[in-house]
Amino acid sequence: MNMAFEMARMTVGQTGKNPAVGAVIVKEGKVIGMGAHLGYGKPHAERQALTSCNENPQGSDIYVTLEPCSHYGKTPPCTEAIIEAGISRVFYASKDLNPKVSGHQVLMDAGVHVDHTPDVAIDRFYAPFFRHLGSGRPNVTLKCAISLDGNLALDDGTSTWITGEAARSDVHQERHLHDAILIGGGTLVHDDPKLTARIDGGGDSPVPVVLLGHQELSAGQLILSHPKRPIIYTANEANLKHSENCDVRVGEWTLDVILDDLYAKGISSLFVEGGATVLTSFIKQQLYDRILIYVAPKIFGESRHALYREQISSMEEVVQFELIDVEKLGSDLKLTYGKA
Amino acid sequence: MNMAFEMARMTVGQTGKNPAVGAVIVKEGKVIGMGAHLGYGKPHAERQALTSCNENPQGSDIYVTLEPCSHYGKTPPCTEAIIEAGISRVFYASKDLNPKVSGHQVLMDAGVHVDHTPDVAIDRFYAPFFRHLGSGRPNVTLKCAISLDGNLALDDGTSTWITGEAARSDVHQERHLHDAILIGGGTLVHDDPKLTARIDGGGDSPVPVVLLGHQELSAGQLILSHPKRPIIYTANEANLKHSENCDVRVGEWTLDVILDDLYAKGISSLFVEGGATVLTSFIKQQLYDRILIYVAPKIFGESRHALYREQISSMEEVVQFELIDVEKLGSDLKLTYGKA
Repeated sequence: MNMAFEMARMTVGQTGKNPAVGAVIVKEGKVIGMGAHLGYGKPHAERQALTSCNENPQGSDIYVTLEPCSHYGKTPPCTEAIIEAGISRVFYASKDLNPKVSGHQVLMDAGVHVDHTPDVAIDRFYAPFFRHLGSGRPNVTLKCAISLDGNLALDDGTSTWITGEAARSDVHQERHLHDAILIGGGTLVHDDPKLTARIDGGGDSPVPVVLLGHQELSAGQLILSHPKRPIIYTANEANLKHSENCDVRVGEWTLDVILDDLYAKGISSLFVEGGATVLTSFIKQQLYDRILIYVAPKIFGESRHALYREQISSMEEVVQFELIDVEKLGSDLKLTYGKA
Repeated sequence: MNMAFEMARMTVGQTGKNPAVGAVIVKEGKVIGMGAHLGYGKPHAERQALTSCNENPQGSDIYVTLEPCSHYGKTPPCTEAIIEAGISRVFYASKDLNPKVSGHQVLMDAGVHVDHTPDVAIDRFYAPFFRHLGSGRPNVTLKCAISLDGNLALDDGTSTWITGEAARSDVHQERHLHDAILIGGGTLVHDDPKLTARIDGGGDSPVPVVLLGHQELSAGQLILSHPKRPIIYTANEANLKHSENCDVRVGEWTLDVILDDLYAKGISSLFVEGGATVLTSFIKQQLYDRILIYVAPKIFGESRHALYREQISSMEEVVQFELIDVEKLGSDLKLTYGKA
């Protein structure tokens, strides 16, 4: 199962709306096949593993990180392939919470021995995937880089190179893992960012999403040459002139409606790299699943660019998170929090 | 050597001005004795290990975390004891940087085989001890508990229970490890703290030190019943009326003069639990060796109680630290930084 999980982790970010899955087939103590789901619309891990078998899988065991699917989606159900191949026993780690999936039952009914062997790490790995299935919204990850005293920038707005190289390349890795990246109009104008995922071996850049409000997009902005077509939420019809290069959505947008709209467009994970205004809105409206905070070993002093822009007047109103993970990146820290 | 280091670590905080040291004596592959320095003025680790031997240490090896001393202090030199016992080989990890110590040379001159086998972890363990020897000042540890957005309190000043139980008991452990604890007049009046080290099995409370400025100490304050006699630095002669219970030092005090004064009184490690004013002064004047930051998984919002009270106007002026250690304490973090 550990090997299957390793394979799943290796393919994170390349499976689109589907979760990454790994499978290993064992016969008489020997691994005879293994595979992972390699891309949206491509064969699932179980079929990949069966195809790779160097001997007849009849009578073998399959270890798979997620319950095999039993419905027709982009590909036929894996349960069918498992039954046809004559596999004797199926061990899977996480239950598929998609109501369309009942692989366990289907396999049992076909006389296959099925064993659900839960694993905390694998369950945690799949948790974000099932969360968006329930909510009908993308998983939202908020990201910011702050000084130890909680500021996004010096008082004069200077914010370049807050963190070191390791933290910055980690951000590109996170961008690569998300379907879309969202910024506010302030960041667009102030930083003119590329919003691409620049990692070794290329990287899959997320779709740029800008909350532009009443501002106007200018023709020279770098996101207009982004490999993916940007989506612009704006209240200003003048932005329609960029419709050739962008998906310009004119209206009075609220964050929750935007999230529904993005999900309908096939975005299942959203990386929010806002400034304080955008971050504060997402936090205040509880529209997030994870917050990644990169903390530099620096003090910026009194600054109007605090992480959170609202005043809180009692301990009961304090925004509270749960610490999920801590990672050292050089002298910077990557802190991962979820909702408390 | 690992065993010797374990013993040294177990006795941290009970050796006063002396560093904690562990020693293990090995003869023909068997441990025949071991010991640690247990208290200021008590026998050193080497003598403790020799006393504990269950057979004649003649011809044995001794492993000791720190270079054996060669001078008369509170106790006679360890080199003498090692030579008299007929030990053949001495392995030590960290060099004693006290100019009075030349144990390596003395032992070699007596025909003992001496081996300095440096160890990064042990060198780091002794670094604070030697730092104060060079500076003639106590080692200074600054401590604060902050929200993720870098505030010591809500805007209205509320700051109780920022962190959880594990972090709070860790603070008592740190107090126990320091000779003295320093606060400002604001904290004294606002919180009326006890400033004791409350840990399992008692704990050794540090000497309370208050920077009182022009304020007046009131008779009911809890530190007046502290087990150690408080030291009060004040510019207000009216505080002399508390001379029976406190060491009242009247004058125009600056931080560096206070540190010299405390060192002269035998304080070799100082724990600073200031509010923002005191913390900012120590940081700005670079008068610290370590900063401990306990980070709660909370957002306090816009607040005038930021960790650092000065404005910084360019990236060149930014205060920069080096990350030394990260520890998870429940959902809180303990971050240890040194000077960059």
